[in-house]
Amino acid sequence: MAERLVVVGGDAGGMAAASQARRRRPDLEIVALEKGRWTSYSACGIPYVVGGDVSGIDALIARSPETFRSDFAIDVRTQHEAMALDLDRREVEVRDLRAGETYRLGFDHLHLGLGAVPIRPDLPGIDGPHIHGVQTLEDAAHLLEDATSCSTGDVVVVGGGYIGLEMAEAFINRGCRVTVVDRGPEVMGTLDPDMGALVSAALRAKGVTVRTGEAVLGFDAGRVELAGESLPADLVVLGLGVAPNSALAAEAGVATGVRGAISVDQRQRTSVAGVWAAGDCCESFHLVAKERVHIALGTVANKQGRVAGINLGGGYATFPGVVGTAITKLCATEVARTGLTERDCQRLGFEFVVATVTSTTRAGYFPGAGDIKVKLLAERRSGRLLGGQVVGMEGAAKRIDTLAVCLTAGMTVEEMTGLDLSYAPPFSPVWDPVLIAARKAAEALEGEA
Amino acid sequence: MAERLVVVGGDAGGMAAASQARRRRPDLEIVALEKGRWTSYSACGIPYVVGGDVSGIDALIARSPETFRSDFAIDVRTQHEAMALDLDRREVEVRDLRAGETYRLGFDHLHLGLGAVPIRPDLPGIDGPHIHGVQTLEDAAHLLEDATSCSTGDVVVVGGGYIGLEMAEAFINRGCRVTVVDRGPEVMGTLDPDMGALVSAALRAKGVTVRTGEAVLGFDAGRVELAGESLPADLVVLGLGVAPNSALAAEAGVATGVRGAISVDQRQRTSVAGVWAAGDCCESFHLVAKERVHIALGTVANKQGRVAGINLGGGYATFPGVVGTAITKLCATEVARTGLTERDCQRLGFEFVVATVTSTTRAGYFPGAGDIKVKLLAERRSGRLLGGQVVGMEGAAKRIDTLAVCLTAGMTVEEMTGLDLSYAPPFSPVWDPVLIAARKAAEALEGEA
Repeated sequence: MAERLVVVGGDAGGMAAASQARRRRPDLEIVALEKGRWTSYSACGIPYVVGGDVSGIDALIARSPETFRSDFAIDVRTQHEAMALDLDRREVEVRDLRAGETYRLGFDHLHLGLGAVPIRPDLPGIDGPHIHGVQTLEDAAHLLEDATSCSTGDVVVVGGGYIGLEMAEAFINRGCRVTVVDRGPEVMGTLDPDMGALVSAALRAKGVTVRTGEAVLGFDAGRVELAGESLPADLVVLGLGVAPNSALAAEAGVATGVRGAISVDQRQRTSVAGVWAAGDCCESFHLVAKERVHIALGTVANKQGRVAGINLGGGYATFPGVVGTAITKLCATEVARTGLTERDCQRLGFEFVVATVTSTTRAGYFPGAGDIKVKLLAERRSGRLLGGQVVGMEGAAKRIDTLAVCLTAGMTVEEMTGLDLSYAPPFSPVWDPVLIAARKAAEALEGEA
Repeated sequence: MAERLVVVGGDAGGMAAASQARRRRPDLEIVALEKGRWTSYSACGIPYVVGGDVSGIDALIARSPETFRSDFAIDVRTQHEAMALDLDRREVEVRDLRAGETYRLGFDHLHLGLGAVPIRPDLPGIDGPHIHGVQTLEDAAHLLEDATSCSTGDVVVVGGGYIGLEMAEAFINRGCRVTVVDRGPEVMGTLDPDMGALVSAALRAKGVTVRTGEAVLGFDAGRVELAGESLPADLVVLGLGVAPNSALAAEAGVATGVRGAISVDQRQRTSVAGVWAAGDCCESFHLVAKERVHIALGTVANKQGRVAGINLGGGYATFPGVVGTAITKLCATEVARTGLTERDCQRLGFEFVVATVTSTTRAGYFPGAGDIKVKLLAERRSGRLLGGQVVGMEGAAKRIDTLAVCLTAGMTVEEMTGLDLSYAPPFSPVWDPVLIAARKAAEALEGEA
């Protein structure tokens, strides 16, 4: 009888592994369980569907259940939810949501791509029907309906992270009145406040009301309660981040770590032999902070899933970790970050110099040249790059990849000043802004020494 | 009496050094000699002035002689040409081109930023008045006049490198009939032919006649002679690359190396004590080929000039070398390369695998997503990245910087598969094309092993 791999979770962390395992093990029986109706979709694309840039939810589906069945011979079972794991008997308890029936499914190998769930703070009224997270395509369908309904006038976004701000822009594009409420000194708390302030300014220029340093105390029908004030809200969008959806694994005895995410080694093995995990339900290792972190991003989930799948298929691969790279575009402003912020450094005990420079995305005289601000943090004494942030106009933000590779390679800012980065007038000034920032950071270090 | 630094050459290689030396040595007397009328200009911007994207030659001047005089206390002497160097007596023989007088100028330190000159092949008629290189702002002024003159109908560009193709586009934009003649199998000989073919196609789509595998045999008034055919040519643009303008130094006994470029060490010191050099007149060390090369690019010249200036000013800095990065935009097509091509590898004895992938610049479903092709070369056994080429639509080419850093860090393509590159739908698919290419290269290596 063929060995059976059961995959729990039909999105990136699960299906990237399933596909890779199939490539290397044509003999394997692979069953994938997904409680929703869709597989392998781009949750990151939801704001663009809601805002109208992308036409329809179907565009976000990378591979349908039918494709996995026909092209990968994977037995995808949508609307089948894994209810419990029995790791001693090597069985999953499965609920067929359409039929309303429960059955047990044995496995030789188990892979968990359980994903994450939007954080819902424990506040009065949080379960109101007009309060939405942004995670699944079911969420997307609800939000799209709200966005295109003429009864949605006032939208309050709670939390000014990536997804919250992308949703704020989406509803502005739909003609709604949008307020973002964030507890931090500026939106985009994964940047330093001086860089986050640029993002707040861009949103305000687009017509979003940004309220920072304020906490939401609760929700009523049609209102969001702040200290001493209440805001009208036909719709509330939760942008407070996500938590790993690891309860199923934890209850079965799989070890978890930071924020309750499933602990995995470099090959994506959990603490239980024969049980693997990848994606938003898992920990990653942060290569600069040198600690385990929970970073829920599609690109990380795909890489971890691929590594798990290669190993599941009898190959060898490791996932070395992350450096904390993220990017977004808000109105015309591009925003990106990688590595550690000032606050991260302070927490971890790193002493550092800061260099922030303003330059242009193209040669200053070239049509379409826009502002770009690059901020670098470099460790004292070693001169090693610790982190970088970029805010600017078209063409600015993808420069973060250059910094991400520098971090991965452990480069110093002095070494960075010599990097052979590309230059032509349509693409950058003769000194790319990354090089200008590296020079300034190197000078700051020299000034200290 | 103050020590005197004489700088020969008023563009990047010279003036970047002069500025840095000034910052560190307020006491130094600095005299800069420039035979032309301008200082610190962007030669790379000339095609965009000629094509009309940038209005006027003045826009290309980063710092004028007046600025260097007033803000940097540098005695800039334009239209003063260094005719000879007397390194024993520590004097430069200078010709004041306006006054028609010659004088000798003593120095304690000498810095050579002599630049490069367009290669003029030894062919019949090469000195015709309608045959132009693209190097100085004087060239720019001539070409701009030709471009906007109604008597210029037929333009022939000899050589299909960066500057030649940029000029071809410029004259097409001005309504001329343009033919590019290149001896190679495809234009853009710094790419492999399979990637160069994409560039040829883009030019043809824009209306440029591209003739590859053909040599120019000579020039007549109004014509360019090929084997068995002659092309009408009101104007001929030379795009055959440049040669280091090192004769002045070589005649004085300064050692030269590859292609006659001035030999320098990592601090930009020449073979003669107290004599420095930087920019297009110099060699660089190629960090992948591990050999000395002559690469004439503004970004390299600026970096070398800065390093020379820091050292001249009593500081310490080194220029580690280049990886051969270059970028351009032709019509809507972006083109970039770094490291070694297949031909380079063959010459150097590197055995390698090739991975070429086609993907999209943004998420496939996102508005404005365009094609991108990424080609990677990786060394057999070691798996180390050897080179990369990118051709694609808006947003494609700056990805070359990611590859340039990977080359500098000596990364393997397997290591690259784990890189934490940025992803959001407006910027890339969930697997950035660079990662897809790295995966394919890693698979090719695994297939070999």
